[in-house]
Amino acid sequence: MAADPNWRSRGAAKRQATLDTIPEKWRLQDPVPPATEVPNVTGAYIQQYLSKREIEITESDAVDIAAQTTSGTWSAVEVTEAFCHRAALAHQLVSCLHEIFFDAAIEDAKKLDAYFAEHKAPIGPLHGLPVSLKDQFHVKGVETTMGYVGWINTFQGKSNDSRRTVQESELTRELRNLGAVLYCKTSVPATLMAGETVNNIIGYTWNPTNRLLSCGGSSGGEGALIALRGSPGGFGTDIGGSVRIPAGFNNLYGLRPSAGRIPYEGAANSMDGQNSILSVIGPLAPTARSLTFLFKAVLSQEPWYHDPLVLELPWRDEIVQETCSLIKRAGTGVPSLAFGLMNYNGVGRIHPPIARGMKLVEQTLRRLGHKVITWYPPSHATAHELANQIYGMDGGVDMMHHFGLSGEKKAPQVLLLEEGIELKASSIADINIVKREYQKRYMDYWNSTVELTGTGRPVDGVFCPLASHAAVIPGQYGNVGYTSFVNVLDYTSVAIPVTFADKDVDVRPANKSAAELEDYIEWDYDAKTYDGAPVGVQLMGRRLQEEKILTIAEYIGKEIAQDLN
Amino acid sequence: MAADPNWRSRGAAKRQATLDTIPEKWRLQDPVPPATEVPNVTGAYIQQYLSKREIEITESDAVDIAAQTTSGTWSAVEVTEAFCHRAALAHQLVSCLHEIFFDAAIEDAKKLDAYFAEHKAPIGPLHGLPVSLKDQFHVKGVETTMGYVGWINTFQGKSNDSRRTVQESELTRELRNLGAVLYCKTSVPATLMAGETVNNIIGYTWNPTNRLLSCGGSSGGEGALIALRGSPGGFGTDIGGSVRIPAGFNNLYGLRPSAGRIPYEGAANSMDGQNSILSVIGPLAPTARSLTFLFKAVLSQEPWYHDPLVLELPWRDEIVQETCSLIKRAGTGVPSLAFGLMNYNGVGRIHPPIARGMKLVEQTLRRLGHKVITWYPPSHATAHELANQIYGMDGGVDMMHHFGLSGEKKAPQVLLLEEGIELKASSIADINIVKREYQKRYMDYWNSTVELTGTGRPVDGVFCPLASHAAVIPGQYGNVGYTSFVNVLDYTSVAIPVTFADKDVDVRPANKSAAELEDYIEWDYDAKTYDGAPVGVQLMGRRLQEEKILTIAEYIGKEIAQDLN
Repeated sequence: MAADPNWRSRGAAKRQATLDTIPEKWRLQDPVPPATEVPNVTGAYIQQYLSKREIEITESDAVDIAAQTTSGTWSAVEVTEAFCHRAALAHQLVSCLHEIFFDAAIEDAKKLDAYFAEHKAPIGPLHGLPVSLKDQFHVKGVETTMGYVGWINTFQGKSNDSRRTVQESELTRELRNLGAVLYCKTSVPATLMAGETVNNIIGYTWNPTNRLLSCGGSSGGEGALIALRGSPGGFGTDIGGSVRIPAGFNNLYGLRPSAGRIPYEGAANSMDGQNSILSVIGPLAPTARSLTFLFKAVLSQEPWYHDPLVLELPWRDEIVQETCSLIKRAGTGVPSLAFGLMNYNGVGRIHPPIARGMKLVEQTLRRLGHKVITWYPPSHATAHELANQIYGMDGGVDMMHHFGLSGEKKAPQVLLLEEGIELKASSIADINIVKREYQKRYMDYWNSTVELTGTGRPVDGVFCPLASHAAVIPGQYGNVGYTSFVNVLDYTSVAIPVTFADKDVDVRPANKSAAELEDYIEWDYDAKTYDGAPVGVQLMGRRLQEEKILTIAEYIGKEIAQDLN
Repeated sequence: MAADPNWRSRGAAKRQATLDTIPEKWRLQDPVPPATEVPNVTGAYIQQYLSKREIEITESDAVDIAAQTTSGTWSAVEVTEAFCHRAALAHQLVSCLHEIFFDAAIEDAKKLDAYFAEHKAPIGPLHGLPVSLKDQFHVKGVETTMGYVGWINTFQGKSNDSRRTVQESELTRELRNLGAVLYCKTSVPATLMAGETVNNIIGYTWNPTNRLLSCGGSSGGEGALIALRGSPGGFGTDIGGSVRIPAGFNNLYGLRPSAGRIPYEGAANSMDGQNSILSVIGPLAPTARSLTFLFKAVLSQEPWYHDPLVLELPWRDEIVQETCSLIKRAGTGVPSLAFGLMNYNGVGRIHPPIARGMKLVEQTLRRLGHKVITWYPPSHATAHELANQIYGMDGGVDMMHHFGLSGEKKAPQVLLLEEGIELKASSIADINIVKREYQKRYMDYWNSTVELTGTGRPVDGVFCPLASHAAVIPGQYGNVGYTSFVNVLDYTSVAIPVTFADKDVDVRPANKSAAELEDYIEWDYDAKTYDGAPVGVQLMGRRLQEEKILTIAEYIGKEIAQDLN
């Protein structure tokens, strides 16, 4: 396809078309005030446009909503309309949607209500629950651009492909089986390889808590939409942090499961077929239990019979029970849980709000009586380098092809290099070996902590930052080393919200000498602009230990929140 | 390293050194008669050199032996010596060993006996059980050549590497933990990419049942050794059939598990780091229950904490129970099991002994009252092509490097091409996508059989040939398409012994017209040379369904054997 000199206008037309699908009644009449005046549009700001009932519905979490909709207490239509309204507002405030299909959603909700009326039972555990999807998942009747202008009117960049707006992704199919209502697809950076969300269609997706900052990426639209409660939960993807970063930047929980649990089958992707680090799908939501709820629901569909990359590994309730019984020991004197704590990865210095966030986590763990050990893992610089080598394996061939479809410009935030070198089979094999050896060393190190925990087990999880900074200033994302090492390891990780950057607190302590200051903290950061930016951390578990880590994340997340209230 | 003009003599010296480790008392005094005179050296032939007690021990299966050794009834030393003796004989008959370390084995056995005497308990479930290993596994004090002359006196081809004869593979470590006695390493074709076993060190490994034929490959030494009962069970590896082929060619059972169950960590390999089709480790043994016993023992070591590629998936006894309860329904009128049957893969015509073997399986299944449907899967030609593309991805770089270390010649049986083209990242990604799409179609086809089985489930397994031919005439292996499609799919498969080629039975039926003959059967084969060659089939299950398929293999294997007696 020849490059289109009109890529800017094609992107703008698509942007306008998306805005035009918002019903008149839900359009903002007055212009949104500038971010400098009203940085935070969450909470009271967005509530001004909503009824009390809409607020009640949309500020319930997925578990509570499903309890109402699966029992017939709330109708699917009422819930769907409330979220469509709030999502429409969210998009007008921070530009977080690629696709809006409220009409189809309300039609689907009507069918669900009819089903319930007839059978006096829900169609599945997600009956009537709106779920948002990152714009990689195909939905019938809806386009997928993944942020590429060249994908408009195509199927993944292919013109005249009969799958366009017809074929659904496997996850989409399963969510429908479960009774979920699909109503919008959220924004991503083209290529997906960025910690911010920007593309030539919808422009830049801003952080709703501080609109001077990024919502994170690549599942940035999910992060922003859910932060504004325009969705009770949604699915993103993560190859280097793309679920966890927007979760952390938006005061949300987000799960990066190990590869092989949630079906990726039939979803669009970047550099599809690269199998040294697999992108994985994970949920984002305001509560940890919502992640568990969505994750467990998908597993109930036995995705291993429908996606060749999914493992036959149903939800393991016995692991939850075991973990809960360990948790119950906390404070009884019997050893309970043990955690590694890593403030600094040896690659990127952290900002004071992150250091404070880690400190808050440590205080909570100690208050609860859990064992905390300092985490001295095999070099994270090695992991960082491996991740970069793997992301760059194709030398940018895939990215250049898709940008080339329209001739559009790549955003500077994209991590891939235009002038990369495409690797050959034997170099790729060498990288895979180095990666496996790194994974082995990390595993052995983890095992070795059995000597330190006093629990008879190695650590149960590891807490570390999600990034050097809180929700980032546009263009200032250093590197994704704090998240991408988890992808190299293929471990489980949950982003947990902790606190917010505070310009008055997160500053260089005046009473400390230079020698007393931790040298991995970047004191000279922009405290004023970061003010109010969400600070999350991640809790990492071993490979495929989603049941355990989700259980701990819910427990510790609540305790942290309690300590801060 | 410069090529060594003396590779022939270096190979010969290593061969002699191995022979020299056989104690004088176990050496054959008279020359072995030519294969044309005495083709079959199993059973009575090899028994002539053994005491009644040695025969009793070595012809017990792994489960029975372990019952004796873990209860202290048989001493580890006695059992070990019996197998060392028989393995020594086997090697002198068919050249099946690369490494012999009987002295170390007997020392280990003494320690096990001392442990038992002291603790009145075994060290683990394999206490005192000799286990043979394909020459890819590193064992302390022992070399690994993997059939390469250039690996002699090195660690995987690297000179002056401190890991040489020091570092053990993870599986080796786990077998020792379990109480197994290691005593020999078995022959392989250099590169491992061949359905026969030949290299420039030990020469050609012959089929003990018919020494005019191949023992199969690449775990050919395992097959030959176990056929002669020089081992009660051993571990091979399989990337295209390398466990199942030698199992089938030697009247044995052999398991190719899905990737991620048995730890490959720290084992030598060909084209290591290629991760589109992973080579996997699986056991070979004379009984199906021995496979289960060995497999389950390894899983009890929690290999997922020691090998980053192993999945946290312990032995699932509940699946065994479920499968057994389905089996118990056979013949009761209630639907029991259902199987797909595929006689021909559309690629390689089969010989009459194979067609007869498949017929025997079908008869047994029907006698038992199981549902049998004809298997019409997505094109196996596609799978065959994919496998070949993947095996050839590096264009022969790895193979040429290792042959180049000594300058030795490649055997013509090796599947890899010297003049291959090394693929780039984007071509590899494309192949990975085509592979995943094929896996998806195969999975959907499998699911679709729910409409045909009458059991409420899709088929429980699929029976098909292991190769076009019984244990093959040297140099006449057509292609490995009958086994490699399983590797493309990453499914579970067990080789099951069925019968033996018979020159009087496996011939063109005189009473049938050309039109009545199945055109996928190659009637014009060498009936006389194949006479007596073992015929196996494979039973394939879905990915990671080892528990189910091992259970069915034991059941059906016994029933087939019963029908033939």
